[in-house]
Amino acid sequence: MSDLIDTVRPLAKKTDSKILMVVLDGVGGLPLTVNGDTELATAQTPHLDALAVQSQLGLAELVAAGITPGSGPGHLSLFGYDPLKYVVGRGALSAVGIGVKLNAGDVAVRGNFASLGQSRLIVDRRAGRPSNEKNAEIVAKLRAAIPEIGGTPVEIYSESEHRFVVVFRATGTPLGANVSDVDPQVTGVPPHVAVAHDPASERTAELVNAFVARAEAALADEPQVNGVLFRGYSDVPHFPNFDDIYQLRAACIASYPMYKGLASLVGMDVLPVEGEEDALAGKVAALRENWDNYDFFYWHVKKTDSTGEDGDFAAKVKKIELFDALLPDLLALQPDVLCIVGDHSTPSKLASHSWHPVPLLIQSRYGRKDAAARYTEEEAQKGSLGLRRGTDIMPLLMANALKLQKYGA
Amino acid sequence: MSDLIDTVRPLAKKTDSKILMVVLDGVGGLPLTVNGDTELATAQTPHLDALAVQSQLGLAELVAAGITPGSGPGHLSLFGYDPLKYVVGRGALSAVGIGVKLNAGDVAVRGNFASLGQSRLIVDRRAGRPSNEKNAEIVAKLRAAIPEIGGTPVEIYSESEHRFVVVFRATGTPLGANVSDVDPQVTGVPPHVAVAHDPASERTAELVNAFVARAEAALADEPQVNGVLFRGYSDVPHFPNFDDIYQLRAACIASYPMYKGLASLVGMDVLPVEGEEDALAGKVAALRENWDNYDFFYWHVKKTDSTGEDGDFAAKVKKIELFDALLPDLLALQPDVLCIVGDHSTPSKLASHSWHPVPLLIQSRYGRKDAAARYTEEEAQKGSLGLRRGTDIMPLLMANALKLQKYGA
Repeated sequence: MSDLIDTVRPLAKKTDSKILMVVLDGVGGLPLTVNGDTELATAQTPHLDALAVQSQLGLAELVAAGITPGSGPGHLSLFGYDPLKYVVGRGALSAVGIGVKLNAGDVAVRGNFASLGQSRLIVDRRAGRPSNEKNAEIVAKLRAAIPEIGGTPVEIYSESEHRFVVVFRATGTPLGANVSDVDPQVTGVPPHVAVAHDPASERTAELVNAFVARAEAALADEPQVNGVLFRGYSDVPHFPNFDDIYQLRAACIASYPMYKGLASLVGMDVLPVEGEEDALAGKVAALRENWDNYDFFYWHVKKTDSTGEDGDFAAKVKKIELFDALLPDLLALQPDVLCIVGDHSTPSKLASHSWHPVPLLIQSRYGRKDAAARYTEEEAQKGSLGLRRGTDIMPLLMANALKLQKYGA
Repeated sequence: MSDLIDTVRPLAKKTDSKILMVVLDGVGGLPLTVNGDTELATAQTPHLDALAVQSQLGLAELVAAGITPGSGPGHLSLFGYDPLKYVVGRGALSAVGIGVKLNAGDVAVRGNFASLGQSRLIVDRRAGRPSNEKNAEIVAKLRAAIPEIGGTPVEIYSESEHRFVVVFRATGTPLGANVSDVDPQVTGVPPHVAVAHDPASERTAELVNAFVARAEAALADEPQVNGVLFRGYSDVPHFPNFDDIYQLRAACIASYPMYKGLASLVGMDVLPVEGEEDALAGKVAALRENWDNYDFFYWHVKKTDSTGEDGDFAAKVKKIELFDALLPDLLALQPDVLCIVGDHSTPSKLASHSWHPVPLLIQSRYGRKDAAARYTEEEAQKGSLGLRRGTDIMPLLMANALKLQKYGA
């Protein structure tokens, strides 16, 4: 099947209508017992219920049947990019996830701290899973020891435990990412020497090998965290620009780095949000203040996912109810098209992302009567939108906003 | 995704069973107010209602989510041709739409009449939108002045206002259509000289440039309509033959040129229909008279679309009821498989084609119990056929007619 983006792009037209896409991260859930209620069905959501009666509902599968989406693929699908075709490399996603902006030509690499024994043989590929504090201490050492390599700026960032990210900043010539892994994925052998698989990646392989040597020197006095392994090199993904595809001026209103990073990768403007953590009030304020300046808003809620990841059913219910309470503030802006959806399910029962489709709600002036009476997984099954791929959502929102011309005469 | 046609073709077998595909053009609609009734739900349709109870229902998306199909893509999808793969060029579609038969090797070109000023600079790309009468008068002048160019027959046809179509008839060597536009799409510059982009199109570019010069000479005494611009050259689409794919003898019963042309492009026999405009009685008679000679009938109703395009809800309801009244005449022929569907939705509320899925009804001896009680958008949501791509319909009809062998052992 040809990419839906290629079909939509020549049909898109600028209009004054406004689209608001609310992403309740991980909102889809599961009942705790057979035939019980999910988190959404348990929550008291008077405003969502009233909205659902006037909206079209359905279910969206973000990647494919049975596939549990990561945040990257889930969001790319919502933005209309087939997540099986548009892939953000692990290194780039790690960088994006901690808020590091990548520029064309840079390479981001995921690293693990490791324990090396005699003759550099790997004893533990995760260096005994150091604490985050220890991780930060090691990263500080490495930053001091390796600010650059032969004129190429090197940036080193903590992730958690044994994980860190290195960004090699291109100066002039772009760096290639086609480099073999340093991590042999077994113990009892020394780290591999990185090899470039194409000429554009030769400088990157040199940088990686130099980094490994200099890191081992800098960490020689560490009893356990004394080596580094690399796996997953990414250059910066070049995705078609969201605004160009859809003829939109699009803005992201989110507070966590991963989501701002993903929106920025496809070219959305990332708006500042006041407040700590999920900062829902700040996000409402940012939406209100910027309402006239954009015609598409991606508006993200994080805690519906975090509570699901924690396996805390009651807390997730509560977060859904918190969103319901501020829904009137969003409705007051009278978007021409309002979409409420998740980027994946995160059932408390699984305490993780899951493959289950997410409930999809679209409100516009051009909807049909629809049997779904609430924004829940069960009611969404009765909705007129049916069960769809996530990549169908953007074309549907564009159509409902009357922003797509007819295909063919 | 591989093309469904390629899967179906080797499985198709000839049998005596008969399939009747009724296309109610643009039949899908919208309620005028939230949760109101659509045109189909408002109409009094006792015969359709009774049929629906005994049939399978579902919804069909002709092109893709959110995509509003033109008549060409909508019909190709109904005939089983993926409309994102099988494309009818604008020139060819214009020719087809006015009933001109194209032969292999011919090229059809869409033209605009334009107003040229001093030094051939374009003043108005639409020549002040002349009346259809003026258009016909100009076309007559051009026909007299340009019956052929260097031995290549030239045919000129009116469309409406400033629009016309030219067909260059191949004599021997096929004409290519890979020619640059004469229309610069701006005013204040002269028309472009057409350039061939491949050797097979060199003769076509010569014909186009000669046509432009001779037309300007013939129209030199016209104050306003004194130039021609070309955009959209099409050779004749070479689609796999419908009868060959499905092992059918297929006939088209329609009264408007566009639909006869589309059926003819895929190789159906186009049967004569007595009567003016939609000529429903004539179409019933044509079906009855030819019932023994074919095993697939495409039977088209136009006015459900026209009234929707006019934004006339009540008139569209009336046209649906008119169809309902003659449904018993169709049922009396006892087709083995009866399908009722649209080629796209045309809600009166939008007064245009729309992206909304169309209700799909299939009656055969081999259906399951189905909760849909009427042929309406709302009831079709409950149907056993689900929400599908339009290209699924032909395989379903073939299967229900027991005309498809098992796939694999």
